[in-house]
Amino acid sequence: MQAVGIIVEYNPFHNGHAYHLQQAKQQTGADCVIAVMSGHFLQRGEPALVSKWSRTRMALAAGADLVVELPYAFSTQKAETFASGAISILESLHTDFVCFGSENGNIDSFTRTADLLEAHESELSALIQQEMKKGNSYPKAASNAFLQLFTEAPIDLSQPNNVLGMSYVAAIKKQHASIKPYTITRIQSHYHDDSLSSSFISSATSIRKAIFDSSSHGDLSKHMPVSTANELTAYKQAHGQFHHWEHYFPFLKYKLLTTPLYDLQRIYEIEEGIEHRLLSYISSATSFEDFLTNVKTKRYTRTRLQRMCVHLLTNTTKSEMQQADPYIRLLGMSKTGQGYLKTIKKKLSLPIVSTVSQCKLKEIDTDIKATHVYSMPFQEPLRSQFMKQEYTQPPIIWP
Amino acid sequence: MQAVGIIVEYNPFHNGHAYHLQQAKQQTGADCVIAVMSGHFLQRGEPALVSKWSRTRMALAAGADLVVELPYAFSTQKAETFASGAISILESLHTDFVCFGSENGNIDSFTRTADLLEAHESELSALIQQEMKKGNSYPKAASNAFLQLFTEAPIDLSQPNNVLGMSYVAAIKKQHASIKPYTITRIQSHYHDDSLSSSFISSATSIRKAIFDSSSHGDLSKHMPVSTANELTAYKQAHGQFHHWEHYFPFLKYKLLTTPLYDLQRIYEIEEGIEHRLLSYISSATSFEDFLTNVKTKRYTRTRLQRMCVHLLTNTTKSEMQQADPYIRLLGMSKTGQGYLKTIKKKLSLPIVSTVSQCKLKEIDTDIKATHVYSMPFQEPLRSQFMKQEYTQPPIIWP
Repeated sequence: MQAVGIIVEYNPFHNGHAYHLQQAKQQTGADCVIAVMSGHFLQRGEPALVSKWSRTRMALAAGADLVVELPYAFSTQKAETFASGAISILESLHTDFVCFGSENGNIDSFTRTADLLEAHESELSALIQQEMKKGNSYPKAASNAFLQLFTEAPIDLSQPNNVLGMSYVAAIKKQHASIKPYTITRIQSHYHDDSLSSSFISSATSIRKAIFDSSSHGDLSKHMPVSTANELTAYKQAHGQFHHWEHYFPFLKYKLLTTPLYDLQRIYEIEEGIEHRLLSYISSATSFEDFLTNVKTKRYTRTRLQRMCVHLLTNTTKSEMQQADPYIRLLGMSKTGQGYLKTIKKKLSLPIVSTVSQCKLKEIDTDIKATHVYSMPFQEPLRSQFMKQEYTQPPIIWP
Repeated sequence: MQAVGIIVEYNPFHNGHAYHLQQAKQQTGADCVIAVMSGHFLQRGEPALVSKWSRTRMALAAGADLVVELPYAFSTQKAETFASGAISILESLHTDFVCFGSENGNIDSFTRTADLLEAHESELSALIQQEMKKGNSYPKAASNAFLQLFTEAPIDLSQPNNVLGMSYVAAIKKQHASIKPYTITRIQSHYHDDSLSSSFISSATSIRKAIFDSSSHGDLSKHMPVSTANELTAYKQAHGQFHHWEHYFPFLKYKLLTTPLYDLQRIYEIEEGIEHRLLSYISSATSFEDFLTNVKTKRYTRTRLQRMCVHLLTNTTKSEMQQADPYIRLLGMSKTGQGYLKTIKKKLSLPIVSTVSQCKLKEIDTDIKATHVYSMPFQEPLRSQFMKQEYTQPPIIWP
């Protein structure tokens, strides 16, 4: 039995994801699709639109066989750390392939890029430092440095999706993992596109925008499987709203305004005195958007600030993150997934968690805390029920 | 020019307070009434119904000449510390008398009690420890110990108002203050009465209960001056609501659920492992009332827990409280109050603050933080405007 891994957020699941999932299975000839999916807080430093359980059902309905949570300590991080956690989990699950989407669909270009980066690590690192001293953000500095060093770069590292793909390949090399990287050509729509495409594939960004834009009356069901559309409708009905940074802003404000400087400095990603800048804008900010717009600089990008704010919101400290190791939290399984799990269960190199209430792993505390924070905008008793589910919910068995 | 001090919370101001204020002035023959008033968080560990500015206007309208804030570090404390802060401030303002209400209206019985307590401090302290070991709360243990030691006690220390009065007298002794204590007989209504009286004097407790009880249609204006009733109506209109612990409960929950044990233990009043008990009930609690009911024990009274929760909410640490010194924050003045202040301004032993934005006193940080927390339930931009007022509002000049 062969397995292909995909690394996803599904925020929300859409037709592009369905295509990726099917192609990953088809092109690698795998029997089992394992999705490593970010939990409640995502790589761009945002709360997921709907809970991980709802997104797990979306994935299972679309054909995923095993859905595993990418823990907070990896899901809310820059590409390198995000990829490192996801690859560790897939490798521990003895996944044969990892398959990601890319513009050019050519895995060699990613492998060559990863080789180049490894061979010129110290020169590149020095160049990145130089670029950052000019006031550039890390992603911009890395991209500039890379272009200076390799005039004919095999892939365009100014594209976030390429950076992620490259990070998966680099993580495999670094971990000496036996998992084989594979890429399939993405069809239409770029990651950052923010208006709905007229075709049946649109970016998750544009779908989220349409969901929150009250003036948008476009039919979203065209852009996603029926199962996803139904899941979104059911979630909104049961929870009253989709999750949005603005719902968490009162808590971020409360946190910043009641925490002394020396405690703010213990928070992960709070560096270089940025806490002073955050404090000088927080009290007068009337919304998260207003706050970010004021705090943002060339060096501190929106994504970097959002991640920082997520760590502030969840009170995640530097020492907490340093100690974080990956683990396998099962969120959902098809029959095939269950069968696959049986064959590898005794050979797992990472601890596995089915139900939180029976788990003694210290790493899980950070994820429980993240779910506590994620549940904060709910009214009671919904909030308590939501948290109870976090403790007692076994993996979803599908169908 | 002689001044009489009164120590108040005015939550809200009512006819009983008006009587006390007038009698304090009349009976002592003072020209100027100085009210030391708790800021946004009160002695029983509760947010004030309306802001300190609104309550300052109530006090000025009823004849107070100078309204000074009792800082958070004293207003949210047990009687001894509460009294110590208030007496320090009145003494620094060269107030001639302090006048409090009591059941028996006899100052000698308070002086004799304070003398007894001082003379038998160590025996009493040992007895209190014994009583607490039986599982009694501190107030109950102190009252029991006192009755054991002095079979014919001059005053009944099971009454909170008597404990406060006694604490004022004891603080004067301890600080060798020259201020003269004075007491007037309270008319009708006990502090803890929770149903509205049929006469024109009702307790603040019963008035607050009627305000929050939607089924109550009693006419509150009978129990308070017209100026207070108007002030309450205007506050509700401008802010949408009166402040209530339940509005702060989501923030308390967020705080408890995101703070590691060792940081909870740094919070003032978190002792004896109570943090474990708080954590074991917080996630499932659907309201503050529900939470308190579950956490409460014989030893941990409602008031003690509420104060603890206020410190948690404001993230007030043990070291922050140890370093707190009183200061004089002017909230409002009549012409008489301004005149009085001129005569004593050069002889003040404590620092004086008119406008926060011009103040460099480190003690004020705790009170600014308390106001930040107090403003949290407001929607934006109301919240930001409220905080702006905290920084820029000079003392209210009346009329």
